[in-house]
Amino acid sequence: MKTYTYPKSQAMFERAAAVIPGGIYGHLGPSNGCFIPTSAYPFFAERAEGAYLYDIDGNRFIDYMCAYGPNVLGYHHPEVDQAAQAQRELADCTTLPTPLMVELAELLVDTVTSADWAFFAKNGGDVTSLAIMSARAATGRKKIIKFKGGYHGVAPWTQSYGNPGVLLEEVDEVITLAFNDLEALEQTIKQYPGQIAGVIATPYHHPALADNALPVEGFWAGVRSLCTQEDIVLIIDDVRCGFRLSLQGSDAYYGFEADLICFCKALANGYNISALCGKQHLKGAVSSVFYTGSYWLSAVPMAAAIKTIEILKKIDGPKLMRERGLQLIDGLQQAAEAAGFHLHVTGEPAMWNMRLSDDESGILHQKWVAECVRRGVFFTNHHNLFINTAITPEDVDHTIEVAREAFAVLQAERR
Amino acid sequence: MKTYTYPKSQAMFERAAAVIPGGIYGHLGPSNGCFIPTSAYPFFAERAEGAYLYDIDGNRFIDYMCAYGPNVLGYHHPEVDQAAQAQRELADCTTLPTPLMVELAELLVDTVTSADWAFFAKNGGDVTSLAIMSARAATGRKKIIKFKGGYHGVAPWTQSYGNPGVLLEEVDEVITLAFNDLEALEQTIKQYPGQIAGVIATPYHHPALADNALPVEGFWAGVRSLCTQEDIVLIIDDVRCGFRLSLQGSDAYYGFEADLICFCKALANGYNISALCGKQHLKGAVSSVFYTGSYWLSAVPMAAAIKTIEILKKIDGPKLMRERGLQLIDGLQQAAEAAGFHLHVTGEPAMWNMRLSDDESGILHQKWVAECVRRGVFFTNHHNLFINTAITPEDVDHTIEVAREAFAVLQAERR
Repeated sequence: MKTYTYPKSQAMFERAAAVIPGGIYGHLGPSNGCFIPTSAYPFFAERAEGAYLYDIDGNRFIDYMCAYGPNVLGYHHPEVDQAAQAQRELADCTTLPTPLMVELAELLVDTVTSADWAFFAKNGGDVTSLAIMSARAATGRKKIIKFKGGYHGVAPWTQSYGNPGVLLEEVDEVITLAFNDLEALEQTIKQYPGQIAGVIATPYHHPALADNALPVEGFWAGVRSLCTQEDIVLIIDDVRCGFRLSLQGSDAYYGFEADLICFCKALANGYNISALCGKQHLKGAVSSVFYTGSYWLSAVPMAAAIKTIEILKKIDGPKLMRERGLQLIDGLQQAAEAAGFHLHVTGEPAMWNMRLSDDESGILHQKWVAECVRRGVFFTNHHNLFINTAITPEDVDHTIEVAREAFAVLQAERR
Repeated sequence: MKTYTYPKSQAMFERAAAVIPGGIYGHLGPSNGCFIPTSAYPFFAERAEGAYLYDIDGNRFIDYMCAYGPNVLGYHHPEVDQAAQAQRELADCTTLPTPLMVELAELLVDTVTSADWAFFAKNGGDVTSLAIMSARAATGRKKIIKFKGGYHGVAPWTQSYGNPGVLLEEVDEVITLAFNDLEALEQTIKQYPGQIAGVIATPYHHPALADNALPVEGFWAGVRSLCTQEDIVLIIDDVRCGFRLSLQGSDAYYGFEADLICFCKALANGYNISALCGKQHLKGAVSSVFYTGSYWLSAVPMAAAIKTIEILKKIDGPKLMRERGLQLIDGLQQAAEAAGFHLHVTGEPAMWNMRLSDDESGILHQKWVAECVRRGVFFTNHHNLFINTAITPEDVDHTIEVAREAFAVLQAERR
């Protein structure tokens, strides 16, 4: 199998580094440990279609990062793009919203179990921050409980003291516990009676650079019950899982109901929108918070979101992604075993996490991932992967073939 | 002249109120004092084209709110939309950025005097918050100075203690002074030696619900000099003024250079993007801050931004908007005078602020604005207005005619 090189990407990165801090910043950047070894990765896209990403050197990848989540129906989805384009012909960002805002809110209320209303913004972090501000406004309390390794955006309250630009005062009322540790949660709530405004968590635990963890039996029922008893606002950050596990919300998927639930990535197949949904009793608190943004009521992403949800319903997207994920995980694990390795898989099949457990340092896993990337399968080694509904069984078969060849490279080096 | 009614907007607002906190939230919402009296205003747009906004009742408005800033070349601008659509055919939000990110950064570096680099995000508030975090990271200091009434987004640090959801701890290191008061700034810097990380300000003062104020002689030179002496990061929030006063940045327009400058609204004619630009010595501090977002490297808004800046350069957009603004202000003031009123105008002509000073309560001004809106001229009475380059001299003449008729209504009521 041909292995890729990236001369154009690398030259473009030099140009980028001259005029952009870090060259490419954040979770799409090579310089922050996302793309290791950097020599295995492309840095710039030329085009994208369905399950495939094409870099500026003309290499094609089956893209299992899915833009870190937004790509749920396949890139450049014709029906979603058509709905968006039809709305663009009318109006996008104007002085007023369009009726699409109301229609999208109604659709979310009809679809998501814990949604009695919806509020739209742009970043996942816009709505996680609105959620904690609303929890504080509703309860008159200050403290927020979150879970170690849980990602809720980049606002100072989501970060740790010691991170550049973050003040101790901004994180001092945020308590961090271990996910799945119900006893610690109960203890903490007892320790601060009447002081906890909200608990925020992802529906299952999907930290970067670590195994993922599904909720243990009784965890969510226990959290829900403690929050109800103590009038604590239970906030589910469904930014990454939302619409990949269930269209009813990932709280419903795990058998409980959140008070507030945050959506973003898969909501509009890459069009720029996020949403906070929640229960009736918090509607007043949400509207009491001063919260707005320049493009928040733009109509085009709302048209895209409506179409995306409609299609996900029609094809039962979550079921399809689960099945495709299971097929892929099974094939990858068999390929590992056949080559004498063990692939440890955690998380949900639609957004699985994996590592070769033969080497706890992670270096073997990095090497294997790099060999996959060089053969056109875009994995990363620090983060969960994503399935989208455009990935075919044939794509999965091809991925497994690439994985086998990558394992063979590792085997050859082992000898 | 026919006066408008809004039965469909009002019915749609009832539907909105059932499923959206506040019905329409934020700065586009009728419920937060933006649209007074509410009966004069439409709430939902059907379509928009050039200088015009059409509501769902079929009424046409010359829209002087310009989506609160983003509409700088006219809604649905064919060249901008074409550039965006061409890019959408290739790639928008994928796992990697496209070379357009580099091209846009290079264009900003070439265009904006204080830009040695550019960083892209989605909200104006994303980049004002990144600016203060970067100032804190660069200096190792905590305190930020801002100016009373200056708007920098909705993050807790921009708000006041007492606002719902805002903790005292989140605003306690932010000092608020009066704009144009150089002496107070000097005193404060003396009072907290080595403790001020940054000063953030709009290039001129354009608070809501108050007269606007241009910088007084010597203010910016003094601020710049104090910041340089004390190694304080000078941050210009050019989210509202950027590309309306000068393509070089509004700091250059007023004859000084910022260390960091924030752009958003007019950057891409309504496509969803914001940018932080700044000086070489802060590039490392910016990249040290953990800061990223789901859609931040999307390519379509970058294509739109490049085309928007190119067109603004070609037509000298800032000059055109200033001239059109002066023509309009002159006509409105003459119409006021002819009817026995006085229209007090402040701010820059391209984004002027006005009020009838015959009545300090503001009620007369509200009435006049309402009569203009009912006749197809979309003004608000709490906020500066905006010019865009699609507004023709004929639109201005028509606006003045509408204004005259609105004054006549006031005159008739006076008698």
